[in-house]
Amino acid sequence: MKRILIKDLPDESGNEVLINAVVSVVRQQGKMAFFDFRDYTSTIQGVVFGKPEVLEIAKEVGEEYSVAVKGIVNARPDNVVNDKVENGDIELEITAIEILNKSEPMPFDLASDLNIDTLLDNRPLTLRRAHEQAIFKIQSTIVKSYGEFLRGQGFTEFQAPKIVGGDAEGGAEVFKFKYFKGVQAFLASSPQVYKQIMVGVFERVFTIATAFRAEKSATSRHLSEYTSLDAEFGFIEDHHDIMRMETGLMRYISASVEENNSDDLSVLKMDLPKIPEGEMFPHMKLREAQELIKEKTGKDSTAEPDLEPEDERWLCKYANEELGSDFIFITHYPVSKRPFYTYEDENDPGFTKSFDLLFRGVEITTGGQRVHDIEILRQKIKERGLDDSLFEFYLQVFRFGIPPHGGWGMGLERLTQKFCDVKNVKEATLFPRDINRIDTLTSKDKSEEAEL
Amino acid sequence: MKRILIKDLPDESGNEVLINAVVSVVRQQGKMAFFDFRDYTSTIQGVVFGKPEVLEIAKEVGEEYSVAVKGIVNARPDNVVNDKVENGDIELEITAIEILNKSEPMPFDLASDLNIDTLLDNRPLTLRRAHEQAIFKIQSTIVKSYGEFLRGQGFTEFQAPKIVGGDAEGGAEVFKFKYFKGVQAFLASSPQVYKQIMVGVFERVFTIATAFRAEKSATSRHLSEYTSLDAEFGFIEDHHDIMRMETGLMRYISASVEENNSDDLSVLKMDLPKIPEGEMFPHMKLREAQELIKEKTGKDSTAEPDLEPEDERWLCKYANEELGSDFIFITHYPVSKRPFYTYEDENDPGFTKSFDLLFRGVEITTGGQRVHDIEILRQKIKERGLDDSLFEFYLQVFRFGIPPHGGWGMGLERLTQKFCDVKNVKEATLFPRDINRIDTLTSKDKSEEAEL
Repeated sequence: MKRILIKDLPDESGNEVLINAVVSVVRQQGKMAFFDFRDYTSTIQGVVFGKPEVLEIAKEVGEEYSVAVKGIVNARPDNVVNDKVENGDIELEITAIEILNKSEPMPFDLASDLNIDTLLDNRPLTLRRAHEQAIFKIQSTIVKSYGEFLRGQGFTEFQAPKIVGGDAEGGAEVFKFKYFKGVQAFLASSPQVYKQIMVGVFERVFTIATAFRAEKSATSRHLSEYTSLDAEFGFIEDHHDIMRMETGLMRYISASVEENNSDDLSVLKMDLPKIPEGEMFPHMKLREAQELIKEKTGKDSTAEPDLEPEDERWLCKYANEELGSDFIFITHYPVSKRPFYTYEDENDPGFTKSFDLLFRGVEITTGGQRVHDIEILRQKIKERGLDDSLFEFYLQVFRFGIPPHGGWGMGLERLTQKFCDVKNVKEATLFPRDINRIDTLTSKDKSEEAEL
Repeated sequence: MKRILIKDLPDESGNEVLINAVVSVVRQQGKMAFFDFRDYTSTIQGVVFGKPEVLEIAKEVGEEYSVAVKGIVNARPDNVVNDKVENGDIELEITAIEILNKSEPMPFDLASDLNIDTLLDNRPLTLRRAHEQAIFKIQSTIVKSYGEFLRGQGFTEFQAPKIVGGDAEGGAEVFKFKYFKGVQAFLASSPQVYKQIMVGVFERVFTIATAFRAEKSATSRHLSEYTSLDAEFGFIEDHHDIMRMETGLMRYISASVEENNSDDLSVLKMDLPKIPEGEMFPHMKLREAQELIKEKTGKDSTAEPDLEPEDERWLCKYANEELGSDFIFITHYPVSKRPFYTYEDENDPGFTKSFDLLFRGVEITTGGQRVHDIEILRQKIKERGLDDSLFEFYLQVFRFGIPPHGGWGMGLERLTQKFCDVKNVKEATLFPRDINRIDTLTSKDKSEEAEL
């Protein structure tokens, strides 16, 4: 008998079918047994009654067992129709069960609230929860729609290397290791260098890169390894072209999540982001944001070169309530707070044509226009006290011409976190690496989660 | 004036337009100047004549300059129509040029044949060649169509971590580094562990992963870092289900390359792969392949546990000429040559339900069915002398149930190489890392390319 996918069972009413599935829930009730089955397409309830030989096997079947099940597809009696689940109006009257693989009994109630360490230490099991499945189905949609939108805008995808010979950002903490012949190598903290090289090749490029940060921070916002959704493109007027492109992108991603993940949003009890009309999200300069915070809350951080996490939360609340947007751009960070390759605004000296995009309380993107003139770039490398011999490969881009350009880097996990409204970015990371964790805790020390 | 994309110029006949472009070729001819311009959509020839003030600027413009150009779109005279290039029937009569960024003169003739070190040491420049653009446009299509096909088959994409706490393959050479608090960490040599975890979550999964190999091999086939197109799925009968899925995938990728990259194939002078009808590429057991080689060539390697590169080339030639296929599966490698998690064929003890896929002379995929029974798996870990405490996180997958499953890993760069028929896998890698190279050579030693 050929396997029927669970999503196709509504078309099989009255027929005997074969499904392959994993058992999510078992309810043994004397001479009856109920099962929730799942495959990669949907879920269905199965029931055994009046068949002693089947019931005998059914009694052995526990949660997370893999099974091949034969049964007849029946409409459920009206009084047990459940509109809230997939296939809630049908059930499978089981005629045979074959056990394909067993499972140990569950070590804890999968449906209960789990603390973060239990959730992460038991990832192979806890990822199977409907809540976790919903998060990572949404993450998959984000990645898919990211590529779709950018390809539609003429961008070409490329693969950025992770082993690098120097740290281009000249700031972020990096992991080091010995390469062949004792050569010092690093794990890339960003695909920045390579994006700029690729603008020279294809003008519009994106990459779904892994970035590594050896920051000694144990917070709900930090990861040692994350997925960076990067893009870069040429012939821009200024950073506003990039912000417009990213606004269109976020609109498209949100529409894709709506189309593909409405069930997952229900599981998470989440709404789609609030996105206003217009070609660009609300935006303001850093100093304007600081003045606004001072005026509305009395908190004076106008002398600071950056926003604190609580400022970002306040601005997002303001954007949501006053501007009808869950997204807000903050522009014109000071030259000193941005990497050497950031373009200084000729009309606002000391400040850059750069931006952060804030979404529901956190910064999810850093972007901006880049310097394209090699003399200015050499000057900026020198001013930072960086060793320009490390940059000779990179500087080829500028020696041999590159149009005015810019782009962004966006943390996939933070974006997922905020789409799903989970508290800790690690809940939106399949296998998070942090200062204390590579799959399991690396020591018996309890991780200290500072909620910054 | 608003920028017009070069691909849209045929609709602008007779109009004055503005384009933004990079200069690919300059031909100064006394009172005339000719340019080949490119943007991310197409190319066009521009010509200056009879405008002294424009010609003066045009004389400053060199190759790889970024420019904003105004001009009138004209049909070319019949005698200079060129069918072989895009927009070969029109040209831009230039009325104004603005230089947006300059370039140094080209250090060598970009259109000439370049040796591999020149090609790689000058990657930011050499990637702009039409030949290299063609290779990486095809690579981008492969990645895009890989995801499209698998999503269409119900697979969910996920992100596999690159920092790992142990080496799951227990064989491949791995890069090591110190993580936080002196903990030893490794760069993942494969996403295998995580794929299997994810089968428990979504049943059908794929990932576009980076894999790292610290193999001390300097050949035209080896890279220290490569992109692994991985997939894994549950409820299979045996390895033939995986081979059928991969056959469908390759057929889809080839069709996508045909649809999106016909110009690129022309640049590379390449044909699409020869793919026969049927749901599975030609396939034979390793021992059958060895017998065939012995029978047809006299070379006796029937006692060997694996194929040598020259055997792979011979089998591919045979498949092409005798079986009408550029792809051929070789199955049933001996247990000793495969990782511990490989499923042993109950009907052919000592040999595994595993396969390699050969394409135009090289192995591009290793795949197979995996052990899903935890007792067998523990036994196999013990037999290999591996430390099973390293596997506790992984073993959760099997403790808590997993359907019969399997999958493949496929090297993107090798696949690209063979689609494009370039000699060295590094030519199909944007920024190849090998024993001697991270962007540029890591020492003055010349890399020794053994053509194995």
